[in-house]
Amino acid sequence: MRDSYWKVMQFSKLPKLNNPVFIEGLPGIGNVGKVAVDFLIDELNAKKLYEITSYTFPHSVFVNEDNLVELPLVEVFYKELKGKKDLLLLGGDVQPVDEISSYEFSEKILDIVQKFNGKEVITLGGIGLTDIPKKPKVYCTGNSKKIIQKYKSDLVSNNLYGVVGPIVGVSGLLLGLASRRNIEAISFLAETYGHPMYLGIKGAKEILRILNKNLGLNLDINKLDKEIKDIESEIIKKTEQLSEVTKQLALRRLQKRLGKDVDYIG
Amino acid sequence: MRDSYWKVMQFSKLPKLNNPVFIEGLPGIGNVGKVAVDFLIDELNAKKLYEITSYTFPHSVFVNEDNLVELPLVEVFYKELKGKKDLLLLGGDVQPVDEISSYEFSEKILDIVQKFNGKEVITLGGIGLTDIPKKPKVYCTGNSKKIIQKYKSDLVSNNLYGVVGPIVGVSGLLLGLASRRNIEAISFLAETYGHPMYLGIKGAKEILRILNKNLGLNLDINKLDKEIKDIESEIIKKTEQLSEVTKQLALRRLQKRLGKDVDYIG
Amino acid sequence: MRDSYWKVMQFSKLPKLNNPVFIEGLPGIGNVGKVAVDFLIDELNAKKLYEITSYTFPHSVFVNEDNLVELPLVEVFYKELKGKKDLLLLGGDVQPVDEISSYEFSEKILDIVQKFNGKEVITLGGIGLTDIPKKPKVYCTGNSKKIIQKYKSDLVSNNLYGVVGPIVGVSGLLLGLASRRNIEAISFLAETYGHPMYLGIKGAKEILRILNKNLGLNLDINKLDKEIKDIESEIIKKTEQLSEVTKQLALRRLQKRLGKDVDYIG
Amino acid sequence: MRDSYWKVMQFSKLPKLNNPVFIEGLPGIGNVGKVAVDFLIDELNAKKLYEITSYTFPHSVFVNEDNLVELPLVEVFYKELKGKKDLLLLGGDVQPVDEISSYEFSEKILDIVQKFNGKEVITLGGIGLTDIPKKPKVYCTGNSKKIIQKYKSDLVSNNLYGVVGPIVGVSGLLLGLASRRNIEAISFLAETYGHPMYLGIKGAKEILRILNKNLGLNLDINKLDKEIKDIESEIIKKTEQLSEVTKQLALRRLQKRLGKDVDYIG
Repeated sequence: MRDSYWKVMQFSKLPKLNNPVFIEGLPGIGNVGKVAVDFLIDELNAKKLYEITSYTFPHSVFVNEDNLVELPLVEVFYKELKGKKDLLLLGGDVQPVDEISSYEFSEKILDIVQKFNGKEVITLGGIGLTDIPKKPKVYCTGNSKKIIQKYKSDLVSNNLYGVVGPIVGVSGLLLGLASRRNIEAISFLAETYGHPMYLGIKGAKEILRILNKNLGLNLDINKLDKEIKDIESEIIKKTEQLSEVTKQLALRRLQKRLGKDVDYIG
Repeated sequence: MRDSYWKVMQFSKLPKLNNPVFIEGLPGIGNVGKVAVDFLIDELNAKKLYEITSYTFPHSVFVNEDNLVELPLVEVFYKELKGKKDLLLLGGDVQPVDEISSYEFSEKILDIVQKFNGKEVITLGGIGLTDIPKKPKVYCTGNSKKIIQKYKSDLVSNNLYGVVGPIVGVSGLLLGLASRRNIEAISFLAETYGHPMYLGIKGAKEILRILNKNLGLNLDINKLDKEIKDIESEIIKKTEQLSEVTKQLALRRLQKRLGKDVDYIG
Repeated sequence: MRDSYWKVMQFSKLPKLNNPVFIEGLPGIGNVGKVAVDFLIDELNAKKLYEITSYTFPHSVFVNEDNLVELPLVEVFYKELKGKKDLLLLGGDVQPVDEISSYEFSEKILDIVQKFNGKEVITLGGIGLTDIPKKPKVYCTGNSKKIIQKYKSDLVSNNLYGVVGPIVGVSGLLLGLASRRNIEAISFLAETYGHPMYLGIKGAKEILRILNKNLGLNLDINKLDKEIKDIESEIIKKTEQLSEVTKQLALRRLQKRLGKDVDYIG
Repeated sequence: MRDSYWKVMQFSKLPKLNNPVFIEGLPGIGNVGKVAVDFLIDELNAKKLYEITSYTFPHSVFVNEDNLVELPLVEVFYKELKGKKDLLLLGGDVQPVDEISSYEFSEKILDIVQKFNGKEVITLGGIGLTDIPKKPKVYCTGNSKKIIQKYKSDLVSNNLYGVVGPIVGVSGLLLGLASRRNIEAISFLAETYGHPMYLGIKGAKEILRILNKNLGLNLDINKLDKEIKDIESEIIKKTEQLSEVTKQLALRRLQKRLGKDVDYIG
């Protein structure tokens, strides 16, 4: 573990959580997971617990609406739900890109889950289709038959084999690595349109319906569309800026490679 | 050695092996080595000894036939063969891609060979042709004249110089690195079709014939085709999924680079 | 931190600096920051304090006008300004390219700022336009409203949100990472032409005007154009050579990949 | 320094060398340096001192004329020359490709130079032209005016500024890094044809003429062509094989990326 590459900053007193369920929703296919978790954080008024930055994240800063800069980061929130299982929520601007960073990040996250004695991990993602689905189906897979039985319903299908290839990134690795720590883990994947700028809100709604029911969150489903509209523009702005980083880098590399021996002075 | 990147999990009590021969067959050209070793593991009913995962392997999980997830991994099996040399068998889903990981992995494997006092390493691979060979020839090379003399026969040619370029990956490195540990090592390379999805079963059969004879494995050659049919679909499924990972990553990178400033909301 | 990759060599006795302001200007978009800081170093006759080389910089040497070789490097200079805040100035041939190196370098630089008890960081850069601007505008952003208030004037606009995407590289990271060390940091970004060989002298002049006024540097603005002409050819030569490195590398890689089996002997 | 990535094996008792001059000639532009140093090693009957392998070298083995495998490696030889300065000679199959490995390797080499109290380093290389030169000119540059004065003659020009861009790789870095250890270092660069498969024998001869004269090696210049013919085919074979590695890797990556969902069974 390249520990010096990862900075975890604590933002509130460590809470005592009751049997917390950990839910991950980072940028990914159709941003389905991100949209769902960002909604949960807002709607449940969850408290920020950790801010994670990494030398493996983009080496750039965003300019926010206040014209101030922000490092790209990932955040962990928590929500105490009286009489029910508490929640740990993982959202953020980015997820690690390369293999090693993705494994390291996932292990760090599972360290946090274990620190709070979490026994259940839920990861959220999208299944990229070539067209925008009208009524997105939700599939699940997990690291044990037990957790799949627990969440199986008419809202979610477990016949994922053959539907998707492998699950790439943190949403997948958390499942695989959790089983070694005897943590049950399940992933909900909603059909969505596979474009990186697409916000898979319909897919996120289907997933939120499942979480709402299974975790007894008492979310007002009617508020979903309005709330999502509020966070939409911010997500798009950041996604745009991040896309801009990679585009600029690619352009600069291309220019360097072609690099005409022309000098421009002006 | 970046030790934290490699996880070796032990799956059975450490056996006392008699003069074990180590045989490697990981995915590679025509998957010849993988098909041969997977057959040996099945047919000999070998016992799982180690499961190796790595932060350098793809950062994704497979969905298996039970709709459960699996990390990409490599496995070491053993088989005790009364009155003969015992076997250590290395098979798996992947092999390291980059230079450093490939060297590190090969050294880790040789550590295992030495732990069991193994004095002989056999690696299996393919020689990629542009057409499907009708009767694949098998070539060998090694790290000493002695081991080549031992395995030379009318079934295998040692005139490899000029036939292939260098032997890339674990099948090659194990030979080169073994010589520093005074471990004799030989590689059997069967002609095959050089497509990454191709399963070089004919080539694998020719190699199995050689191993069967030289190691006295008493394999029923007539069962070969049937047995291989049984594992065929599983291998293809995983190869497909892995290919899917790299394809998805490439696509996502491409999309990011082109990344039109268009927003899709739906 | 991969400390062995970074070499910091001290070039003068450590000065006692009075409340120093740190100003960064490394190669980047339009080389605006580099032109401005190189001018400050020359015009103020600043003293060299540190020379920084890195294993992450290009693995090549320049040939200078004396036909002697020079490693690519980054330099820190200082200037004592009686009765005013002293200056620390960061200039150089290169800046780190990949994510990890860029974060590590920025942290190393902030270590230096803190060593001299610096409380303010200014980074300089360009905003790449598709055409050469006649009268380049200067924008600023920072890590606190306080420092932006301090430097805001009719010469500089803070309405950066939406004007640029993220600020990539050391100029951006220094702002983001400084806020964790309670160091106020601001970036001045001048419009310029977005070509890697372009020297954004007009943009640099606009930035220098702001620094001259705010830091009370008493620079003779009329000398600007002449002075810049003197350093121009050296900057262009190095930029050309660096561009040559990446071009040669790209070419060699391409040739290797295509690598016809043709031998040329002569 | 990632020490575990580098293996230095000693092949003879450590000699006591008299004021040794270190000469480097690794594969590079036109393979000029490699051809020259390989000739010196053969002709002077130099003794092998070290064999260096690295996890950063290609992860593959060559098949040699004896049909045995060889890891890609770099070798240091020495030659005692009674009454004159002794020689340390660096030749090999490869040189590190990426920035960090190239710096690390160069530092390791300078450690060896210092171990034998060497005070002078000579690196050999090519200047790639677009056509095959009839009478290649030799240029030099170095890390001090003193060493350039020492070697300057009518055979070699020091007007390199503007003729080449930066000197990329070990031949360049050794000069830059040596100056920090107070080791005088010079590079002789002969014009050659810039194709990776080209063997710049004419350029190597011009450089050998300079070394022969300056170091008093008493080489029979008339034997040069014959001797070089002897090592020619071996160099070409290895260069071909290495080129084959990178070609195969590129092809496999390309195939994976395109990776049709077609299965080939045969």
